[in-house]
Amino acid sequence: MPKIVDHVRRREELADAALRLLARSGIRSVTTRAVAEEAGWSPGALSHYFDSHNDLLVHALRRAVQRQADYVRGAIQGSDHDPLERLRLLMRASLPVDERSISLLRIFLIFYAEAGDDSETSDEVREYLRSWRRSVTRLIVAAQDAGQISSELDPVDLASDLIALADGLAIHAFLDPEVLARSTERATALLTVLESQWRPTPAKSDAASA
Amino acid sequence: MPKIVDHVRRREELADAALRLLARSGIRSVTTRAVAEEAGWSPGALSHYFDSHNDLLVHALRRAVQRQADYVRGAIQGSDHDPLERLRLLMRASLPVDERSISLLRIFLIFYAEAGDDSETSDEVREYLRSWRRSVTRLIVAAQDAGQISSELDPVDLASDLIALADGLAIHAFLDPEVLARSTERATALLTVLESQWRPTPAKSDAASA
Repeated sequence: MPKIVDHVRRREELADAALRLLARSGIRSVTTRAVAEEAGWSPGALSHYFDSHNDLLVHALRRAVQRQADYVRGAIQGSDHDPLERLRLLMRASLPVDERSISLLRIFLIFYAEAGDDSETSDEVREYLRSWRRSVTRLIVAAQDAGQISSELDPVDLASDLIALADGLAIHAFLDPEVLARSTERATALLTVLESQWRPTPAKSDAASA
Repeated sequence: MPKIVDHVRRREELADAALRLLARSGIRSVTTRAVAEEAGWSPGALSHYFDSHNDLLVHALRRAVQRQADYVRGAIQGSDHDPLERLRLLMRASLPVDERSISLLRIFLIFYAEAGDDSETSDEVREYLRSWRRSVTRLIVAAQDAGQISSELDPVDLASDLIALADGLAIHAFLDPEVLARSTERATALLTVLESQWRPTPAKSDAASA
């Protein structure tokens, strides 16, 4: 039993070392030797914990997904928030605003780029995006139940649009400080625009006549 | 004179070989040897055309940017299109819908991920995004002049939002076939939502009272 715990913990340590390297110096820096050195181990030790270099990378991706999920969960928690407010907080939690989120965004960009090659990475990335979409869909359905978003709209479509927008803004903010400086403001402004469309409108035909 | 032309052409050939490798097998596959082989040259020949491996990569990125710019220019051309229609065509031209655009999107994702490390790549990527933003801004200003978009809106803000949305949708479509299947439809639907907000509304106060 303690041995299994140790094994899991060691794999996490090594995956975290790989994530630090990815954030710092990109995919080409993540060699078996460099990861071992970063973790303070001998190069041979890695083979006891991972079947292959790719196995290590996929495990590192899972750690990154878990970290982001924990962070987002923390950011939107609070029993006093209504569903729409939680949706706003979730959008904001996707933007790269500090050291932590910038590192993580870079890591995801690397795995997005790698997903073209490797089917396991591709599966994990797709599952990450789908899980993000499911979370947003659930919040939208809750907001529809609470009468905050029109029930005529397809929650999955809305969720797809929102996460594409959030990820696009985050990626451009990461790549251009000019965008970064305004990304939180833009995300808020855009949500306001979209929300005005989502609002249930019992008197739609009157508004259209203006 | 013919020698200079040759030199330029050889560099393009090698950069294109690097782009093919990037699209096919990712950044780790782009070694000097592999690029030479892909182009049908001896490995030593590359050093006559590029100062470094990085020089080759940056040159390849410039070729990718040029290809995308040519494609977009072709897609939105047509003297019978009004500015808003050109904006719609430009949005559609950013989505990965065929072999060509999927390869190119993957190449851009790789350079986005690389931009974290290398300042030259980072400068090129930033300039690419800014140039995209400038094109969209120009179309928005033209649409404002034509009375199709409210002149109260900041064209640069709108342009930033639109390209973030377009790139986010394109990247998610690349990563998930479920999103790909609906991305064109979603881009169109979202533009319709946004356009309804952009429209000049001389009788805004009446509409709000409904």
